[in-house]
Amino acid sequence: MSTNRAYNFNPGPATLPLEVLEEFKDRFMNFGGLSLFEISHRSKEFEGILEDAKHLLTELMNIPKGYTVLFLQGGASLQFAMVPLNLMDKKAAYSITGYWSGKAASEAKTVGEVEAAFTSEGANFNRTPKPSEVRPSGSYLHITTNNTIHGTQYRQFPDTGAIPLVADASSDIASRVIEVSKFGLIYAGAQKNLGPAGLTIVIIRDDLIKKSFRTLPAILKYSTHAENNSLYNTPPVSAIYMMKLVLSWLKKKGGLPAIEKENTTKAGLIYDVLDKSGFYKTAAERESRSLMNITFTLPSEDATERFLSEAKKSGLIGLKGHRITGGIRASVYNAFPMEGARTLAQFMKKFEGQQ
Amino acid sequence: MSTNRAYNFNPGPATLPLEVLEEFKDRFMNFGGLSLFEISHRSKEFEGILEDAKHLLTELMNIPKGYTVLFLQGGASLQFAMVPLNLMDKKAAYSITGYWSGKAASEAKTVGEVEAAFTSEGANFNRTPKPSEVRPSGSYLHITTNNTIHGTQYRQFPDTGAIPLVADASSDIASRVIEVSKFGLIYAGAQKNLGPAGLTIVIIRDDLIKKSFRTLPAILKYSTHAENNSLYNTPPVSAIYMMKLVLSWLKKKGGLPAIEKENTTKAGLIYDVLDKSGFYKTAAERESRSLMNITFTLPSEDATERFLSEAKKSGLIGLKGHRITGGIRASVYNAFPMEGARTLAQFMKKFEGQQ
Repeated sequence: MSTNRAYNFNPGPATLPLEVLEEFKDRFMNFGGLSLFEISHRSKEFEGILEDAKHLLTELMNIPKGYTVLFLQGGASLQFAMVPLNLMDKKAAYSITGYWSGKAASEAKTVGEVEAAFTSEGANFNRTPKPSEVRPSGSYLHITTNNTIHGTQYRQFPDTGAIPLVADASSDIASRVIEVSKFGLIYAGAQKNLGPAGLTIVIIRDDLIKKSFRTLPAILKYSTHAENNSLYNTPPVSAIYMMKLVLSWLKKKGGLPAIEKENTTKAGLIYDVLDKSGFYKTAAERESRSLMNITFTLPSEDATERFLSEAKKSGLIGLKGHRITGGIRASVYNAFPMEGARTLAQFMKKFEGQQ
Repeated sequence: MSTNRAYNFNPGPATLPLEVLEEFKDRFMNFGGLSLFEISHRSKEFEGILEDAKHLLTELMNIPKGYTVLFLQGGASLQFAMVPLNLMDKKAAYSITGYWSGKAASEAKTVGEVEAAFTSEGANFNRTPKPSEVRPSGSYLHITTNNTIHGTQYRQFPDTGAIPLVADASSDIASRVIEVSKFGLIYAGAQKNLGPAGLTIVIIRDDLIKKSFRTLPAILKYSTHAENNSLYNTPPVSAIYMMKLVLSWLKKKGGLPAIEKENTTKAGLIYDVLDKSGFYKTAAERESRSLMNITFTLPSEDATERFLSEAKKSGLIGLKGHRITGGIRASVYNAFPMEGARTLAQFMKKFEGQQ
């Protein structure tokens, strides 16, 4: 099954653990005479899957009492709207550290007033702020914990006091130890670190569930989904099952402390080449470097094209940078294998040597 | 693979064609060195899948020029909100023929004024209206083409003139020939007739895409998804692939005229037993009977329980009626096999004979 498997650096949907795919393949036709795609979301079997997934996530992220885990649809993009619709009274603060936090802020502007709590736009989003640089205000402060396009990540989170901290953690959820109690709400699309596309995770502090500043359709209210245990409407059954398998895999690996260590080593292999190179350039400031998305540029468009094409021949795919930044982006989420990072590092050195 | 396969009467997620599941199993690890769950939604491969799915649906449903097909998330429940948010100026009309049309109307009430264009609530939703009974008014008329819980279905659609007809076709999309040009917008969750849970289909007349009566987050606007060819945000990749396979299967079977004939025969096998029985009772009026969900009751709670338990022993599962109606519900969507309907009909006759 794994013979022709490529090293997949795509930014999401992203690589999944091979043993999860194998378990899925073994099991998906065997759900009491049905396939996984056919079981009812009201069945005992699926209820068990949902509970397992919730408990595993709670255990792995050490989610304290007083928080509720929701499994929704619509991706982070729907959360860009649901967060302000539910939680914003008149205004909220957004820390702008890249394309996606800008998108989140721009959706919030359709709901109320947005204050920029910080922005690194003037420096092409080359860093995340120090906690002291961020000015929380209004109903909440919104941050994007990891910036996939610019390759930056928050190492420390701002202290927002009584103002809830809301985080889009789509590209680094469950990749490192974080203190959930610092956050009012954490949301993430599953398709980078936790499973396939089509599933959104929301972790919400219970006092925020019932915030209500405006009349909303029930489907857009966190309270609806909380009251119905994520079964208000038909959930994405197979994506939740896949996430359960990914979370079990993560637990077996030693949980978040272990994966954080592994992610640090993996990213380190590639940053090490960048730091020793006079050829590759990375724009992200050292203290803001992402462990998930490593971005760099080559001296010319032509060299970039050759890099991508030779990498592909070596089984290294999905390395093309986002159109906004150009260059190269290596996304090395939880399930990306150490051996793949090593292979890329070697490839980079060899490629540089040939120039 | 098919040896232990149950006859699955679940109302959705529902049974899928066995050959589709087999094709999925054969192919899902073989997408250019990746699994289906790992390919980028920006890849050429996925773009091909998306286009194939769109073209197949357009061909099968004979969708005329001037309509756009969108693949979204959030199920019909999110459409209950998106329809009024996008299309309602001050008021709209809703024909209330069951639980789900009531839900749609109640979400619309959070947006503007709702007029009841028809209701069969007084008769426990035992029928859908004749075209002449429906009074369209306001920005659109909303109907639910098939009522899964009460087992009724529109046989003829109201003529709404210049007022757009909006239809929730979640439980009968692509199960029969309809004239799309009569509709302004048709939406449906995929998980009954077209694929797994987590995917919503919207077919919208182009003049309605840009309707704009209020400021909305981009993610909630039809125009956003139309302008981005359903790739505004990460789509549910595997569900779209599965739908593509289901649509190919449908085409091979002879398309909608063929499946409509088959569905009529399938449902007829069960209605025939009901019509000849003094034991089973069906509430739905004959002219409103659904070809998708056949609902009936037994004389007692106890008989119902025995029916369900003995059916299960015979490999007939998912027959329990909705909690609102009680009794039995046999959902026999496109992929439900003729042989399963025959088996249920025989089982019903035998069970009645033993009473």
